[in-house]
Amino acid sequence: MSDLESYKVRTKEWFEELRNQICASFEAIEKEAAGPLSDRPAGRFDRTPWDREDQADGSHGGGGVMSIMRGGRVFEKVGVNVSTVHGTFTPEFAKNIPGADQDPRFFATGISLVAHMNNPKVPAVHMNTRFIATTKHWFGGGADLNAALPVKKDTSDFHKAFKAACDAHNPDYYPKFKKWCDDYFYIKHRKRARGEGGIFYDQHNTGTWEDDFAFTQDIGKTFNSIYPELVRRHMNEEWTTEEREELLKYRGYYAEFNLVYDRGTTFGLKTNGNVEAILMSLPPEAKWP
Amino acid sequence: MSDLESYKVRTKEWFEELRNQICASFEAIEKEAAGPLSDRPAGRFDRTPWDREDQADGSHGGGGVMSIMRGGRVFEKVGVNVSTVHGTFTPEFAKNIPGADQDPRFFATGISLVAHMNNPKVPAVHMNTRFIATTKHWFGGGADLNAALPVKKDTSDFHKAFKAACDAHNPDYYPKFKKWCDDYFYIKHRKRARGEGGIFYDQHNTGTWEDDFAFTQDIGKTFNSIYPELVRRHMNEEWTTEEREELLKYRGYYAEFNLVYDRGTTFGLKTNGNVEAILMSLPPEAKWP
Repeated sequence: MSDLESYKVRTKEWFEELRNQICASFEAIEKEAAGPLSDRPAGRFDRTPWDREDQADGSHGGGGVMSIMRGGRVFEKVGVNVSTVHGTFTPEFAKNIPGADQDPRFFATGISLVAHMNNPKVPAVHMNTRFIATTKHWFGGGADLNAALPVKKDTSDFHKAFKAACDAHNPDYYPKFKKWCDDYFYIKHRKRARGEGGIFYDQHNTGTWEDDFAFTQDIGKTFNSIYPELVRRHMNEEWTTEEREELLKYRGYYAEFNLVYDRGTTFGLKTNGNVEAILMSLPPEAKWP
Repeated sequence: MSDLESYKVRTKEWFEELRNQICASFEAIEKEAAGPLSDRPAGRFDRTPWDREDQADGSHGGGGVMSIMRGGRVFEKVGVNVSTVHGTFTPEFAKNIPGADQDPRFFATGISLVAHMNNPKVPAVHMNTRFIATTKHWFGGGADLNAALPVKKDTSDFHKAFKAACDAHNPDYYPKFKKWCDDYFYIKHRKRARGEGGIFYDQHNTGTWEDDFAFTQDIGKTFNSIYPELVRRHMNEEWTTEEREELLKYRGYYAEFNLVYDRGTTFGLKTNGNVEAILMSLPPEAKWP
């Protein structure tokens, strides 16, 4: 097996393993929850495999598995999608993808997660990491916190955790990837950030694949450590109708960002992607009062 | 006063007059309502004037008035925006606007309305008519019905009314403008229409301004006759929780259309338009379960 082929196998296996670890964490939280809505049964993930449409040349385009938990005690709706797809970029897209100008074939594997919470005091979150290969290959990803009612210490602990993960690899990463996140998750027409930020990186290839893979693994592990900690910190707190209304309005802004600006969403929708997987990020309920 | 200057004054006055007529119709419906939620006070419109940002040359860019009724017995949220603005297109936009390649200055006046209803059995609706002038000038507009639980006779009566309005001017209008509406209000990623259709027309200039103005006036009058009729037909009916959930899911699709595809919305958001006026079209509550 060539190096590249082994990279594809190892990244795919890692993203699946990370999905299993995160789903286990979140189901453990559901079992522990003892606050509002704990009269509900503990939420469980349902897994639904999906296939990508077959390619023009008749070959299979890959697919993925959507893991969704709905209506839990703590998690109102959380989707974790792992996909591994391959195919050929159209000439129009190939122009904008590194390495695809020479050969438009691509491979992409990744994990993408969005969690919307019942409790307005528990922040929502987004996390995504991926490995892409054309004639070049690179990692991308990040995580950002989205609190309708931000708590300084939560924001600060979330950032500290990702700073530590970044610093262990390169002290330049955190400042660069934090700024990238702030720039990316900005709702231009509202003149406000989508949330409390985090990190965002793309086309990450330092020339040492093992390091880059270890970095991407650390981002996933850090997520699965700090986010459950923040959830546990607030999940048993009570909330008021006014706080829930704040959350629903905040989610409206979140939906606006994803539908108007998010490149993955708009790219996916306009290129016949899997609609359910792409729009899993949309909030279970939102208001524009 | 030149012909064109008188056209600007007359169209602006008509759109304001139509707004007054529609607001009066809708407030009359609120007073009459005797079904679910009629223990609430009858809804009333609040008017909020807004100014467009001043132009680069220091001149005033015009503005408008948002009329909004919220939390009524029948109308959950309805916004009627009348705006009259002028300015200079950026070179990039000027390329795509008829007549603006010769001189980038423009004038635009119009009325835009979106109504979201409490009762899943009462269809939502959108209506918009406008007059634009560059070195050329034209009318545009339309109306389309959006029922979460479509009723054949409602759809058919809505279309009949606009067909009659169109036919009185030109028998070619209705088939052409109906198709234009179907093509425009299509949610590509969902492979479904946004609603039950209606009519849509743009860059409408037959060479006889008085006829074109009369046509645009007739579209507004037709709207203010047929839509209140459809509302009265269903407003006192009861609904179930399941029907309301259907409505909230349907509104999710509506929000997707407006944020992903609607040219007025995406154009407005990306060019620093009045966010509150542009996003008044978004549903007061929506679900992506």
